[in-house]
Amino acid sequence: MRSVLRVRMGALAVAKEELAEACRLLGGRALTSALVAAEVPATCHPLSAENRLVIAPGLLSGTAAPCSGRISIGAKSPLTGTIKESNAGGTAAQAMGRLGLAAIVVEGKPKSEAPHLLFINKDGGRLSEAPELKGLGNYDTVKALHERFGEKVACITIGPAGEMRLAVASVAITDVDGRPTRHCGRGGLGAVMGSKGLKAIVLDTAGLPRAASANPEAFAAAAKRFAKHLATHPVTGQTLPMYGTNALANVINSAGAYPTRNFSAGTFEGVDAISGETERETILARNGNPRHPCHPGCTIGCSSIYPDKEGNFLSKGPEYETVWAHGANCGIADLDAIAHMDRADDDIGLDTIEMGATIAVAMEGGLLPFGDAAGALRLLEEVRSGTPLGRILGSGAAVTGKCFGVSRIPCVKGQAMPAYDPRAAKGIGVTYATSTMGADHTAGYAIAQNVLGVGGSVNPLKPDGQAGLSAALQQATAAIDSTGLCLFIAFCVLDVPDAGQAVVDMLNAHCGTAWTPDDYVGILGKATLRAERDFNRRAGFTAAADRLPDFMKSEALPPHNTVFDVSDSDLDGVHAGL
Amino acid sequence: MRSVLRVRMGALAVAKEELAEACRLLGGRALTSALVAAEVPATCHPLSAENRLVIAPGLLSGTAAPCSGRISIGAKSPLTGTIKESNAGGTAAQAMGRLGLAAIVVEGKPKSEAPHLLFINKDGGRLSEAPELKGLGNYDTVKALHERFGEKVACITIGPAGEMRLAVASVAITDVDGRPTRHCGRGGLGAVMGSKGLKAIVLDTAGLPRAASANPEAFAAAAKRFAKHLATHPVTGQTLPMYGTNALANVINSAGAYPTRNFSAGTFEGVDAISGETERETILARNGNPRHPCHPGCTIGCSSIYPDKEGNFLSKGPEYETVWAHGANCGIADLDAIAHMDRADDDIGLDTIEMGATIAVAMEGGLLPFGDAAGALRLLEEVRSGTPLGRILGSGAAVTGKCFGVSRIPCVKGQAMPAYDPRAAKGIGVTYATSTMGADHTAGYAIAQNVLGVGGSVNPLKPDGQAGLSAALQQATAAIDSTGLCLFIAFCVLDVPDAGQAVVDMLNAHCGTAWTPDDYVGILGKATLRAERDFNRRAGFTAAADRLPDFMKSEALPPHNTVFDVSDSDLDGVHAGL
Repeated sequence: MRSVLRVRMGALAVAKEELAEACRLLGGRALTSALVAAEVPATCHPLSAENRLVIAPGLLSGTAAPCSGRISIGAKSPLTGTIKESNAGGTAAQAMGRLGLAAIVVEGKPKSEAPHLLFINKDGGRLSEAPELKGLGNYDTVKALHERFGEKVACITIGPAGEMRLAVASVAITDVDGRPTRHCGRGGLGAVMGSKGLKAIVLDTAGLPRAASANPEAFAAAAKRFAKHLATHPVTGQTLPMYGTNALANVINSAGAYPTRNFSAGTFEGVDAISGETERETILARNGNPRHPCHPGCTIGCSSIYPDKEGNFLSKGPEYETVWAHGANCGIADLDAIAHMDRADDDIGLDTIEMGATIAVAMEGGLLPFGDAAGALRLLEEVRSGTPLGRILGSGAAVTGKCFGVSRIPCVKGQAMPAYDPRAAKGIGVTYATSTMGADHTAGYAIAQNVLGVGGSVNPLKPDGQAGLSAALQQATAAIDSTGLCLFIAFCVLDVPDAGQAVVDMLNAHCGTAWTPDDYVGILGKATLRAERDFNRRAGFTAAADRLPDFMKSEALPPHNTVFDVSDSDLDGVHAGL
Repeated sequence: MRSVLRVRMGALAVAKEELAEACRLLGGRALTSALVAAEVPATCHPLSAENRLVIAPGLLSGTAAPCSGRISIGAKSPLTGTIKESNAGGTAAQAMGRLGLAAIVVEGKPKSEAPHLLFINKDGGRLSEAPELKGLGNYDTVKALHERFGEKVACITIGPAGEMRLAVASVAITDVDGRPTRHCGRGGLGAVMGSKGLKAIVLDTAGLPRAASANPEAFAAAAKRFAKHLATHPVTGQTLPMYGTNALANVINSAGAYPTRNFSAGTFEGVDAISGETERETILARNGNPRHPCHPGCTIGCSSIYPDKEGNFLSKGPEYETVWAHGANCGIADLDAIAHMDRADDDIGLDTIEMGATIAVAMEGGLLPFGDAAGALRLLEEVRSGTPLGRILGSGAAVTGKCFGVSRIPCVKGQAMPAYDPRAAKGIGVTYATSTMGADHTAGYAIAQNVLGVGGSVNPLKPDGQAGLSAALQQATAAIDSTGLCLFIAFCVLDVPDAGQAVVDMLNAHCGTAWTPDDYVGILGKATLRAERDFNRRAGFTAAADRLPDFMKSEALPPHNTVFDVSDSDLDGVHAGL
């Protein structure tokens, strides 16, 4: 039986409790959202003692299922005011699975201003003050933790941005090399962790076996089948391992949906310099590693290790969205500069998507010219230092627009749009508008059908069919995000029916359930969206918030010169099937 | 027939047009809200070309009706995202009345970055660039305008805050001495004016008579009756002329409803030093003027002229809300320091209420200690200079809280609460929660019945009866705000039935109508609230936004140790009678 570790910061008390019966078959996003919806007053201030930070590995995390190491973190978001789930790879999900922890729930606020450290091993958890970690970047923080607890522990940490409770603050998870490169980036969850006075969580799995399955043989068979499908699908078996996510740069740019200079154009003249192909060549030329798993057990390996010009580790290979955010969106065609910004974001503890979007808004507001890479990097250091300018930027694109009087703000529910312009890929626009999370590409990745031709094909430039497409994807995504499986398995599952069946077979064999695929989408997907939408409704969000900013409906985007014209009634119908 | 002056900043074109038939009997807030609701897309960005700034004198402005010189300015608010009307005294309303202008509507954006000047006289309006005014404070701006156009013109101007499009920016109106001391403060309307590239409007009434009434004799008789009621009522005839609005400091402090140090207590130990009595003594000792009208034709004279220690003009006597905002709420018990801040706010073009609330939030965030008057004044100068810190503060209390990680934010719909704590005066809390404008005391001043015993008495500490009280006041207020009459006439009207009848008689005699008092409240009051609520609904606001922040419901306020406990269903019922 999996447990919940309840961490009361007010009393500095840690206790294990049983997972409530209603949550017994939930994991990942399904569990964080169920607990946040049940325990957090929807109208509370996100930085108040009433908010709770919930950390949950997926249902399959801790097993040998391929790509099952995603960890979900949830809370009421300081950036959007909605419920929030953000997930990442790294080593923490598998560690929590081994520890038998379905969730860590952090509540209240400590009396002391000092940063706190939560250490968890097979005997339980204990809290202590850790003044020596105060203000440290994530890299120095994990270095100190490794020195104290050994190299094998998994770490969940925040950087200075989280300590300052800035709304762009991420939560970092150490990767397979012990570096803090995997981030639950979106929605400011690092600020919630900071508001709890919690700087770091250390997970020690010494002496613990993998999570036990109800039916180990059936599980092993299904996992083997699943691994084979992943290895043979062209996206998960070839493109992603070869070029990583940044393979998309040329693809999305060719589609005219590559947001450039604060969403003022759909193509970037400098794309060649920052494409996945160039990134791979650069990494190889510097003896970096072009294929690196984001978590133990990943069989895709779409990440990489990006060395500097001297061949020393600089950062993980920046992902497609990071390259876009700090690159095309800021008019910057310099992969090294982008990698430096990626490293700074990871160290300060910032969402790379929101920061790139924010810097672009600041550029539009006249703070520095588009294309100024050195200036952009300096802005990140302002955030680290907590200067007033840094606090503006660390509060995100919407606040930055407000402070600098900019009216072209590419946000939904206060969260900046990622690397796909909804005027040239309208399915993703429906997801941005109607997701429970604010503008979020991963909530329903219609780019698959709009641009990549995976799982069908829907014309990206027409409004027709986008709502139904996004609806189905949002439901399936919520389910996947609850398993601990990487979302990229969807490329394979969308194309290969037996791959989806293998996922359900793994879940049934591990959990002892007898779900059909419909049960799986219903219990982990639809029910999760219902809980999230109910929370948002109680927090004050209605259909009127499920809209893109007006400029997307009036400013045509070159080169297709299209506007976002999916009707409000289509948007309002997206979740009718829940 | 009154006209509308339509000002198209894109084409730099100014044209007079007929007032639409549906608006023929509207003025002030009724007209600004009707035009904003009809012409502004509710979902537009407040700083975009689609927003419009509407300036309208009241129906009686330009006549000899006592206290009829209030001017309303409306737009979609950059601070709240709601519809907004903010009104002030000064000389502009009477001037527009003489010019026969029911409204000035400013739309679009100019191509040039230069500030623009709109000059209006009996021949119409003309736009020109005014680069020499760029960045000037309101005092220097009106000085330049008077040098160019003579001392008798009325000026509507913005300071540097409006030019920077900051959400706390006000619109200044010159007073009877030609000083820019009367402000449409709330909701950031100065930022909308700034986003239109409009620095100043000059109104020249040379050669123009008073606005003609349909029945001059009946009008004169009703106005005379009304003037007599105002002169003999103890509030409008004695207290306000003697001590000004700041007479409230001791009264509200005694009631335990005087928000102190960012709404953490209901009494301020330093109240004596900043009370209306002390303010009057100080003014008299320095040979200032303790009784000064905020607009021509005001018979109450609740304002004053506050000299510095050398006896030179420093600012108008700071109003109760200003003294509170920069005083008790920041822990500052220094009237001279407050007057300096009042002057700085007026010059930079800032809402004194929002700035005081913002500085208190910044103090809670650790930026400076409570009570640091010199530090607070320095912060205002940061806003003037447009430093990053100044841009944070100039964006209001909610943004400042976000940037500095503060969770006790006394805002509704993004606008800071004024000088009455809703936990100890629950009727005003209902108004804060349910007003169409965000937290606004003038929208339904339940302090009259909760504390002052004017127009009845409702226990301030109990939730009972507050919703109905606020509902009736909100309707009556919207009607008064449409007449051009000062809201303070309500103290008299609430107590003296014939005073209310005299208002309706003046309106009928001037406009040629045959309204009953019910017609008056229905046409100018209820219909205005309906239009405003419909706009807000289309902008995305629902009942869920009609709430006070959670901390008001859980943190008890000393000395009464009460929380805000008017039920949500009571709040939701406030506007049921519309």
